[in-house]
Amino acid sequence: MRQIFVTTCLGVAAMFAVNAQANDELIKLSGDAKQWVLPTGDYANTRYSKLDKINAGNVSKLQVAWTFSTGVLRGHEGAPLVVGDVMYVHGPFPNPVFALDLAHDGKILWKYEPKQDPDVIPVMCCDTVNRGLAYADGKIFLHQADTTLVALDAKTGQVVWQKKNGDPKKGETGTSAPMVIKDKVLVGISGGEFGVQCHVTAYDLKSGNQVWRAYSEGPDNQILVDPQKTTSLGQPVGADSSIKTWQGDQWKIGGGCTWGWISYDPALNLFYYGSGNPSTWNPKQRPGDNKWSMTIWARNPDNGMAKWVYQMTPHDEWDYDGVNEMILADQQIGGATRKTLVHFDRNGLAYTMDRDNGELLVAAKYDPKVNWTSGVDMTKGSPTYGRPKVIPEYSTEHNGEDKNSKNICPAALGSKDEQPAAFSPQTGLFYVPTNHVCMDYEPFRVSYTAGQPYVGATLAMYPPQGETNMGNFIAWDAKAGKIVWSNKEQFSVWSGALATAGGVVFYGTLEGYLKAVDAKTGKELYKFKTPSGIIGNVMTYEHGGKQYVAVLSGVGGWAGIGLAAGLTDPKAGLGAVGGYAGLKQYTSLGGQLTVFTLP
Amino acid sequence: MRQIFVTTCLGVAAMFAVNAQANDELIKLSGDAKQWVLPTGDYANTRYSKLDKINAGNVSKLQVAWTFSTGVLRGHEGAPLVVGDVMYVHGPFPNPVFALDLAHDGKILWKYEPKQDPDVIPVMCCDTVNRGLAYADGKIFLHQADTTLVALDAKTGQVVWQKKNGDPKKGETGTSAPMVIKDKVLVGISGGEFGVQCHVTAYDLKSGNQVWRAYSEGPDNQILVDPQKTTSLGQPVGADSSIKTWQGDQWKIGGGCTWGWISYDPALNLFYYGSGNPSTWNPKQRPGDNKWSMTIWARNPDNGMAKWVYQMTPHDEWDYDGVNEMILADQQIGGATRKTLVHFDRNGLAYTMDRDNGELLVAAKYDPKVNWTSGVDMTKGSPTYGRPKVIPEYSTEHNGEDKNSKNICPAALGSKDEQPAAFSPQTGLFYVPTNHVCMDYEPFRVSYTAGQPYVGATLAMYPPQGETNMGNFIAWDAKAGKIVWSNKEQFSVWSGALATAGGVVFYGTLEGYLKAVDAKTGKELYKFKTPSGIIGNVMTYEHGGKQYVAVLSGVGGWAGIGLAAGLTDPKAGLGAVGGYAGLKQYTSLGGQLTVFTLP
Repeated sequence: MRQIFVTTCLGVAAMFAVNAQANDELIKLSGDAKQWVLPTGDYANTRYSKLDKINAGNVSKLQVAWTFSTGVLRGHEGAPLVVGDVMYVHGPFPNPVFALDLAHDGKILWKYEPKQDPDVIPVMCCDTVNRGLAYADGKIFLHQADTTLVALDAKTGQVVWQKKNGDPKKGETGTSAPMVIKDKVLVGISGGEFGVQCHVTAYDLKSGNQVWRAYSEGPDNQILVDPQKTTSLGQPVGADSSIKTWQGDQWKIGGGCTWGWISYDPALNLFYYGSGNPSTWNPKQRPGDNKWSMTIWARNPDNGMAKWVYQMTPHDEWDYDGVNEMILADQQIGGATRKTLVHFDRNGLAYTMDRDNGELLVAAKYDPKVNWTSGVDMTKGSPTYGRPKVIPEYSTEHNGEDKNSKNICPAALGSKDEQPAAFSPQTGLFYVPTNHVCMDYEPFRVSYTAGQPYVGATLAMYPPQGETNMGNFIAWDAKAGKIVWSNKEQFSVWSGALATAGGVVFYGTLEGYLKAVDAKTGKELYKFKTPSGIIGNVMTYEHGGKQYVAVLSGVGGWAGIGLAAGLTDPKAGLGAVGGYAGLKQYTSLGGQLTVFTLP
Repeated sequence: MRQIFVTTCLGVAAMFAVNAQANDELIKLSGDAKQWVLPTGDYANTRYSKLDKINAGNVSKLQVAWTFSTGVLRGHEGAPLVVGDVMYVHGPFPNPVFALDLAHDGKILWKYEPKQDPDVIPVMCCDTVNRGLAYADGKIFLHQADTTLVALDAKTGQVVWQKKNGDPKKGETGTSAPMVIKDKVLVGISGGEFGVQCHVTAYDLKSGNQVWRAYSEGPDNQILVDPQKTTSLGQPVGADSSIKTWQGDQWKIGGGCTWGWISYDPALNLFYYGSGNPSTWNPKQRPGDNKWSMTIWARNPDNGMAKWVYQMTPHDEWDYDGVNEMILADQQIGGATRKTLVHFDRNGLAYTMDRDNGELLVAAKYDPKVNWTSGVDMTKGSPTYGRPKVIPEYSTEHNGEDKNSKNICPAALGSKDEQPAAFSPQTGLFYVPTNHVCMDYEPFRVSYTAGQPYVGATLAMYPPQGETNMGNFIAWDAKAGKIVWSNKEQFSVWSGALATAGGVVFYGTLEGYLKAVDAKTGKELYKFKTPSGIIGNVMTYEHGGKQYVAVLSGVGGWAGIGLAAGLTDPKAGLGAVGGYAGLKQYTSLGGQLTVFTLP
């Protein structure tokens, strides 16, 4: 707005300067290991910190420095930000935001709590979670449950601007963390269980004006795909690549939601994210590949145009919602350094891809119990190249509507859900919080009504046959597609991991333990029982010369929906209530931040 | 019930055996410093522990061992119990009870949560607090918000019996901890702001049958006073000692509630408690001394009969609700060992009395700012012996209805409220969490309607003129009636204190800090910021050879009612909302237990 008095020409120059500045600011800040300025820690989503004062040699002496209650029950996903001397903490609906003074044990500098219609709560499929805040240009960005994207003055908590990103009355809700890239705030949307046509949208950092919107399915001009230039596995996608894979207008209620984490490669100027399951969960009702649901996207942040796409699970039959994060890491594969993207999909396969061109390098099961597929066809030139081979016994479409397909692994919540993995360049390993859960799945016919659940399946969840642990925390070699070590956990590990230069990896458990393990061996070095189950992501920062590790507790999310929403019917929560019924022996609701340091 | 098949004679013998057993069990268990079996720690209410592994020399190294969330927001008063290897944790409405496994970081052995009509919430004057559980005879006793007294099997959490102690539709609510003495469960009642005729009631430990009920005001047979044998300051109280101090039938809606702590002297077989303010808060509406509101009671637990009474604040004009605890300690006074009772009243005076006969030994201000009285007439034989001398300027009756009396100290919430003090026999000092708050008070005429607020006053609260701190934590010499040391606190200290043989005194602050100070000097040795403001009482126990200190966080209570109930009008909460508005800069709602130990 300051530029309105200069000439148009100068105005454009100034705008470029601002763009570069915002970009540079975040790239610079996110490179400072003492801060945690992105919801993902870094643009590459490695969740790796160069801090090493807390390390494998001393982490057993870790202790709690201070704690903070958010005043909200239900599930607390995401992680706080640290910018300078201030920590920004978010919570689930009603989405309070706190600015806490790091120099004074988290004294509250300001609090913002939006007024939102509580009618949004029943429209939130899997708890009233929020995955965190973004920071840029002196502003804190919050994506509210009701889809309002709000920019707050980071110093005062005053609203700078706010925009509606969707309409809860149509089933559109906000749960994801925004991501700032250059001069834009990018934000996805939730509602795959309500037949939403999902999208990623870019808003101008300064004004909040919408710049572009890219849908997951629809005509090329809605999905921002160039039929010639946008590729899939090296081939142009061609015209109408999405709509021709849907029956009639089903793409308009096709899901493909975008509530996962966003990654960005400044050198390639591409950002990456996954689109989710097609609606409904009854595959018989939506013939076709349902593109571009279940897809890894590489887009240009300036205009939203897709450079490449890769659909992992064409015609999903299991709700293997492809939203999980893309971790960007350069790795030696086949004697060459490849700019890779590594993705642990809900479908139980871990993908290693060339992030520049979308070449598929590795696709391997990261839980040996995965049984719906025998693997991906890796034969280039094959008509089914890149497609997973489905085992008929575990195909819910093959078995048919109103038929209960049993012992499908993984369950709908996947071998991993939104809980982000970490990558350590020290070890070259990926650290993955996993679900070790199977399911019975019975699809049934459902009709679409705007704002009403559009699910069409009944589920039960349980550990794999003959086992009792519902989770593992694993170290993964993404070059070879192999598990290096695996720690059993009683419940799904629904917390995001943190890897550090101290040779330690941190994660939380649904019982409420923060754990530190040796990055090389997985040996448990420390654990502490926080007030409630952990579904938040562990982060670290330095302040006053000391390294701190922090995590939000607050049991909930899909796995904890029984506790979070007070449900007791085992079939409720799409089978999660019965599957995770044992959680109530360990923990109770409550949203708290626990901050750790060495004495 | 097991005795019904034996002869009557044997049955009686068996009952006596049971009585003695229950009594002996608690006396023995409460003498074991490793456990914390009474809500008050010990029958004498000293809140002193003989444990000394954590001491003044090492307490600075204290760290958090484990934590637990209760899943309830709003104010958490009271303290958990520890019986054997199990910790029993309670919460405010809806009053969940958790049995936690000390050997496994508080794994939940069982949870009990009563179904209660939420209509009780608006009938709870000063937050939905509950002050804790009692244990005896393999049972856990909970006094629910709706006044149900429930006995739970300590091993399973199954209901053994339950009884209604009152009627929330009349304004009667349950907030106090039950106390087991011999074969009876004693429990008071809340509702002084609703015109309740309050009482202490004894229920049979085994059956839950009511054994006796002693009202605070009413005819002699209701208040269980013997006109000849019950004394006040050494004189028989005479017939109709209560009802003749009320106009007409006003005693029937007279208040005198009983929600404080109960003490017991097994040698004297007397139990002690205070009765609260007379209803309404407009003194003009209720002429007379309003006996026995504002009274210290010494009663026989077998039949409830009063041995002696002492009314501290006849005809209350300030809501100096006399419910605070009586601490029983033998002290050298005037060259002799006296069986004393020490009481820090809301009215700002600390009383030292002979607990056998009710002789008044010392009455002194424990906050120098107390200005409504120049002190108690200590001249034996004087017609006003034992009565406080009221300063007309600060008499709300003198100034009249609809007149705003200003700068009265202390405020209605007293120089101390329910937050219990501690006594260390090592130092001979009492450690008192205090409020340092004054008020404007404007009484107005109010009519009584059952179940509706019957207050009749508007208040504002603030620190004493020229000061900013609203609390002090003091050490008190109850023999001399003098402050030994005093630590300023920004807000009222609404947490109960713990003194230990380690020469350390612990307390919590409304900002959320647990603090440890040197018992001799008050020097701060340790502080830790818990997730929420502390209004719970600090307790200690030993398990597996290690000493632990534990406290409930959860801001609320009267001082924290603004945060707890989401009130913003400064006059709301009878002036507490405005007085404590600054709290929101420090803490947020949340109910959590924090357990500390040494590395």
